[in-house]
Amino acid sequence: MADVIARISIADPSDSRLDDFRDLNHSDRRPDRPGGKGLVIAEGVLVVSRLLGSRFGCRAVAGTAAKLDELLADPATAEAVRRTGCRVMEISREVLAAVAGFDLHRGLVASADRPVEHTVEQVIAGASTVVVLEGVGDHENIGSMFRNAAGMGVDGVLFGAGCADPLYRRVVRVSMGHVLRTPFAHTGGTPTTWQRSLALLADHGFTLVSLTPDPRARHIADVLDPPGGVPPAKVALLVGAEGPGLTEHAMRATDCRARIPMAAGTDSLNLAQAAAIAFYERQRSLRG
Amino acid sequence: MADVIARISIADPSDSRLDDFRDLNHSDRRPDRPGGKGLVIAEGVLVVSRLLGSRFGCRAVAGTAAKLDELLADPATAEAVRRTGCRVMEISREVLAAVAGFDLHRGLVASADRPVEHTVEQVIAGASTVVVLEGVGDHENIGSMFRNAAGMGVDGVLFGAGCADPLYRRVVRVSMGHVLRTPFAHTGGTPTTWQRSLALLADHGFTLVSLTPDPRARHIADVLDPPGGVPPAKVALLVGAEGPGLTEHAMRATDCRARIPMAAGTDSLNLAQAAAIAFYERQRSLRG
Repeated sequence: MADVIARISIADPSDSRLDDFRDLNHSDRRPDRPGGKGLVIAEGVLVVSRLLGSRFGCRAVAGTAAKLDELLADPATAEAVRRTGCRVMEISREVLAAVAGFDLHRGLVASADRPVEHTVEQVIAGASTVVVLEGVGDHENIGSMFRNAAGMGVDGVLFGAGCADPLYRRVVRVSMGHVLRTPFAHTGGTPTTWQRSLALLADHGFTLVSLTPDPRARHIADVLDPPGGVPPAKVALLVGAEGPGLTEHAMRATDCRARIPMAAGTDSLNLAQAAAIAFYERQRSLRG
Repeated sequence: MADVIARISIADPSDSRLDDFRDLNHSDRRPDRPGGKGLVIAEGVLVVSRLLGSRFGCRAVAGTAAKLDELLADPATAEAVRRTGCRVMEISREVLAAVAGFDLHRGLVASADRPVEHTVEQVIAGASTVVVLEGVGDHENIGSMFRNAAGMGVDGVLFGAGCADPLYRRVVRVSMGHVLRTPFAHTGGTPTTWQRSLALLADHGFTLVSLTPDPRARHIADVLDPPGGVPPAKVALLVGAEGPGLTEHAMRATDCRARIPMAAGTDSLNLAQAAAIAFYERQRSLRG
C-alpha cells in the first residue's frame, strides 16, 4: 500500500509557509521572483491535478480537508505529490480566505515555479497544427484558446509580440489548466525574431494561414479542406487581437488569408470563438 | 434638409426625466413595470443605433454631446429618432454616472419598452435555421449566442424552460444589440408547451438536432452536411446548459444527436462556442 501523504495543519494565516498564496489578487507581479513575474497558481481540484501531472514543478498545495481528500483520491495525482515532494497544507476555508485576500470557493490552491520555457523549435517539432498569436493581450481569450486547443487537436501555441503572459493566474483558470499541458513558446519581441519564427515554420513545412474577417479572404473551409484536394500536412494558424486583427506585415508573411463568413452588418466573432471554429475546421479536414 | 433633433440639456441628476436610467445595476427588476421586469436598456452608440433600428419602441436616449453627435450623424438613426419621437437628453458624463450609479464609459444609453413577444409560429415561419435553448441561465452565453447567430445565418431563437431573460441588460450588451434584431420566442414553461413546440418544429419540416458532448453521438458534420447527401432543408439545433446539457427527455424528442469531437481527457466546449461551431457547420453546409 502506498504511503499516506503527510499533511501539515495550519491555523495561523500569517504562517510563512502559506506565503505562496498570499494576496492572490496581486500575486502576478513579484519583484522578488525571476523576471518579476509571479508563481504559477492553480485553483480547484481539476486544475491542481493537471498542474501536478504537468512538467511544472509543484511547490505547495493548500486546501480544506475535503478538497485535499478529493485531490489525493486519484492515485496518479497522489503519486505526483510524492514524487515532487511538494508541501501539502490542510487549512480551513476561512484561513485560506484570510491568506488569499478573498474567498476561494474552490477550496484548493497550488503553486509552482515557472519552468524554463520551450523554444519555438521544440514546440513545432512533431506538430501538425499550431496557433500563432500576435498582439493578443486579453487573458480570458488566451485561456479560452488553450482550453479549445487542447480539446481540438492543436499541438502547440506560439506567442508573437504584444501578447499577455500565458501563465497569469486568470489564464491558468480559464484554460482549465491546459496552458500547463499544451506546449507554448515566445518568438521573441523583435520584428527580426518574429520573422525568423515564421520562416522557421515555413522551413518545417507548415502552411501559414492568417485568420481575418476581411471579406476578400478565402473561406476557411476552402483553405484547410480544399474541395477535391488534400488538406495541408502542417498548418500554422495566425490569429491577431480582437479589433485590430493581425498586422498587414504578419499577413504578408503567410501563405494565404482565410475568413469565417459573417453576414453583412454584423460583428466579427470573438477572437477565441473564431479560433475555435478554425480548430474545428482543421480537425474536420483531417478525419478519416 | 431634415429637421434638427431637439436635445434637452439636463444638469440635475435627480431630474425625473432621467428615471429610466436610474441605478442601472438594479434596473432589471422593476416591480412597478409589467411582469416586474425592467425596461430594455441599450448602451453605447452601436447598440443604441441597433435599438433604434429595431421593433423595440425607444422611450429615451441620454448621452454626452459628443456621443449624441456620433449617434445622430447616421441618417437612418436620426430618422428613427424622429419617427419614434423619443426624448433625447444631453447630459455630462458626470451626471450620467450619478444617475446610473457607475461610470458608463460608453457615454450613451437608451431605454425601450418590452414589446409583445413573438410567438413560436412567428419565429419559425420562413426560417431555415433556428436554435432552441433549454435551461440556459447564463446571460453572457445567451448574449454571445445572439451575437454569433446574427453573424452566421441563424433565423431565430426559441427559449424552453429554465432560461434567463434575454432582455436583461447584460444580454443586450454582450449580444451587441442583436437580441433586439433576431426574433425569439418562449415555448412556455410547462412540459406540455415544450413538447408542443418541438412537435410544431417537426410539423414545419425541421430536422431536430440535439447538440451533446456524448462521444456516442454522430459527428456534427455528418448530421448537418452528410457526405454524398443533401443538408436538411430546415434545422432546429437544441442546446442545453453548460454542465448538465440537454435533458434526456428533450434529446428523445429530436431526430438525432450530434457532437463536436473533443480529445479524450479534455473539457467540453463552452456553450456559446459549441453553438458557434454548429452555426458555422450549418452555414458551411449550405454554401453554393
